[in-house]
Amino acid sequence: MTTLDHCQELDAKDPLRTLKDQFILPPGVIYLDGNSLGVLPKATAARVAEVVTQEWGVGLIRSWNTAGWFESPQKAGNKIAKLIGANAGEVVATDTTSINLYKVLSAALNIAAADSPTRKLIVSERSNFPTDLYIAEALCQERGYTLKLVEPDEIAASLTADVAILMLTHVNYRTGSMHDMATVTQAAHAASILTVWDLAHSAGAVPVDLTSAKADFAIGCGYKYLNGGPGAPAFVWVNTKHTERFWQPLAGWWGHATPFEFTPDYRPAPGVNRYLCGTQPIINMAALDCGLDVYMAAEAFGGMAALRIKSLALTDLFIELVQERCVGFGIGLATPLAHAQRGSQVCLTREHGAGLEGSSGAFAIVQALIARGVIGDYRVGDGLAHKDIMRFGFTPLYIGFEDVWHAVEHLRQVLVSEEWKRPEFNQKHAVT
Amino acid sequence: MTTLDHCQELDAKDPLRTLKDQFILPPGVIYLDGNSLGVLPKATAARVAEVVTQEWGVGLIRSWNTAGWFESPQKAGNKIAKLIGANAGEVVATDTTSINLYKVLSAALNIAAADSPTRKLIVSERSNFPTDLYIAEALCQERGYTLKLVEPDEIAASLTADVAILMLTHVNYRTGSMHDMATVTQAAHAASILTVWDLAHSAGAVPVDLTSAKADFAIGCGYKYLNGGPGAPAFVWVNTKHTERFWQPLAGWWGHATPFEFTPDYRPAPGVNRYLCGTQPIINMAALDCGLDVYMAAEAFGGMAALRIKSLALTDLFIELVQERCVGFGIGLATPLAHAQRGSQVCLTREHGAGLEGSSGAFAIVQALIARGVIGDYRVGDGLAHKDIMRFGFTPLYIGFEDVWHAVEHLRQVLVSEEWKRPEFNQKHAVT
Repeated sequence: MTTLDHCQELDAKDPLRTLKDQFILPPGVIYLDGNSLGVLPKATAARVAEVVTQEWGVGLIRSWNTAGWFESPQKAGNKIAKLIGANAGEVVATDTTSINLYKVLSAALNIAAADSPTRKLIVSERSNFPTDLYIAEALCQERGYTLKLVEPDEIAASLTADVAILMLTHVNYRTGSMHDMATVTQAAHAASILTVWDLAHSAGAVPVDLTSAKADFAIGCGYKYLNGGPGAPAFVWVNTKHTERFWQPLAGWWGHATPFEFTPDYRPAPGVNRYLCGTQPIINMAALDCGLDVYMAAEAFGGMAALRIKSLALTDLFIELVQERCVGFGIGLATPLAHAQRGSQVCLTREHGAGLEGSSGAFAIVQALIARGVIGDYRVGDGLAHKDIMRFGFTPLYIGFEDVWHAVEHLRQVLVSEEWKRPEFNQKHAVT
Repeated sequence: MTTLDHCQELDAKDPLRTLKDQFILPPGVIYLDGNSLGVLPKATAARVAEVVTQEWGVGLIRSWNTAGWFESPQKAGNKIAKLIGANAGEVVATDTTSINLYKVLSAALNIAAADSPTRKLIVSERSNFPTDLYIAEALCQERGYTLKLVEPDEIAASLTADVAILMLTHVNYRTGSMHDMATVTQAAHAASILTVWDLAHSAGAVPVDLTSAKADFAIGCGYKYLNGGPGAPAFVWVNTKHTERFWQPLAGWWGHATPFEFTPDYRPAPGVNRYLCGTQPIINMAALDCGLDVYMAAEAFGGMAALRIKSLALTDLFIELVQERCVGFGIGLATPLAHAQRGSQVCLTREHGAGLEGSSGAFAIVQALIARGVIGDYRVGDGLAHKDIMRFGFTPLYIGFEDVWHAVEHLRQVLVSEEWKRPEFNQKHAVT
């Protein structure tokens, strides 16, 4: 049996343990929800205050030039590029994930329509993040395409001659299972299909190499693993072979070739700037930049490769401890055991009927854990055969092995004591 | 002749003079660019720090519910509603002006396509803000419509039976001239044409009454007169008669009827929430809310009606002083003298050839003024018959009559001394 002592030893030997000092973590909290909203880096508050009081307050309009506000999407983008196997000048931080998906999917549809006009399908996973499906559905409706939703094991067979685009989320938000980006992209390209990857749960969570995978388009989120703060700008990457053909209808002035000539006709800027649209939230952008700086600092410790080793050790330990110490409470595992198929999160399941009033009890267990300071989250298990999800994200930047021990110990106590059955934990309200 | 003493008397008698105390203005600056980026309210820095260190840092994911992050677009929207003649629950603060225009123009095109499918034109002004034209152009291209650009005096005659939508900016960004929203909307409706109004230069600048005008759709900007900070969320309003038919393709999860059920199919939320798309920049949103609170405080002083009286007095004084004290330097006026046609800015012109190397000199004069601490901005005078623009915004919340005197005195000195001819003022770089 794994012991607390052993977990403490793992922390003592952890070469990344000092990275935790770059964050402010609230006392009494074990935060396993960095996959939903990352934590606050120590440098952020002072930098945000500087943007507000100095750059805005004193610099005012002059700061667009003097404080580099105009270049901030590219500056943050270049840092993100390092985390996803892209080159400098290929990524911009901007807008939201949904809106960036609309841009790249629009552009991909335009390219597909020109190159293979008879292909009229977009293929995605039924369990993809819903907002991705909503955006794809809307575009299909507008352009006369059909969105075909398949199960993960049906993807390979679905890459037929009528498919224009394969749109996938690299790491599934609910199960934490990960696609092999290079293999899937290769299969898509062999069938002349363009690929659009959502990296919301992979940028900063797992090593990503868009260039090696020869992916076509990618977008992702700034406020999850990248610790950019609530509503941080998202990002967009396009394979440079598509850049000059990239056209999207959110044709705002920030994407114009000469924005300050204020010409009445739109000419997309050369390169990465054409992915931009309107004026960006500069305060949130500065916070995102601070979140990314922690990753830049982590390069001295081995970067994403080292973070991945620790991430897998953390999720292995969590799975092991749950399987050792939480037996007999109907807890299942939705996350793959194979490392190559696992993101940086673990999703436990409970079957419908295992909780109160026919529920799975997963919601109540998560609420009871949150009350104890162990913050994970609950997700409806739609598509998972009558199961619901308890989701735990492990961010190796600030989560340690002893944290994992205590999280599982709290889970064990919640289950043994049946404290999750308390009425206050069974009242649903808006949850994230 | 108007004297400095007289200006000081006007300040002493100004019932709104104490509102200036709600802002932090950098010393030595007369800021006449609030129409481009508003100034920093005193309350903002502390509120932003609270969002970062407490709501994000301590509350973490819990703050989506406990700190009201989810409702923040509606909360700010309800404050904006009071400034534009809308009702509570009709406005949301979200995304950027360009993206919101894409949403409302998409929705308007859908409604027009259903109600009057033979109408295939969108009419706008050639001198409309370019990003509005880019967005309209992109949508026209996608939907098989044509964007017809006309001069202001051609609008009435252009409302023909082939027009689906009239899209106008209420106050022109370059000339400061203002449309009569009620009259223009009435004329459009008489011809069965929907109206889309951009309020970027009117919300917080002039009284707006969308409800009385029976307008159809409106969008606007949070970082200009509303003092929401760089890149503050923009806003969107829809006449409630269109709400339930409002469909736009940026169909993200924040606009879903039940966002936390994570269903794979999109169902737009009832009411205002359907104008939302993805996760909003919460830090910038909090700053916007502080900017709006100053307007809420201004209600005790008479609100927009009182601000309008002062705004017109400021712009009248500026025009009067320029005409008295800057004679003989080729300075013209692009802003209408008639109050009913004037926004809260004054645009002076210079003819091409009046500056160095064939230029108008307008850029250099603005640079020389900025060096003296009088911050206005320069705009290319495209469409203005060989003239360029020097643009000065007057925000009655924090600009006083003595400020106007000194601004004109600096302008006079720059012209008399010819200091604008210095090389450093004639080197163009990115300007806002």
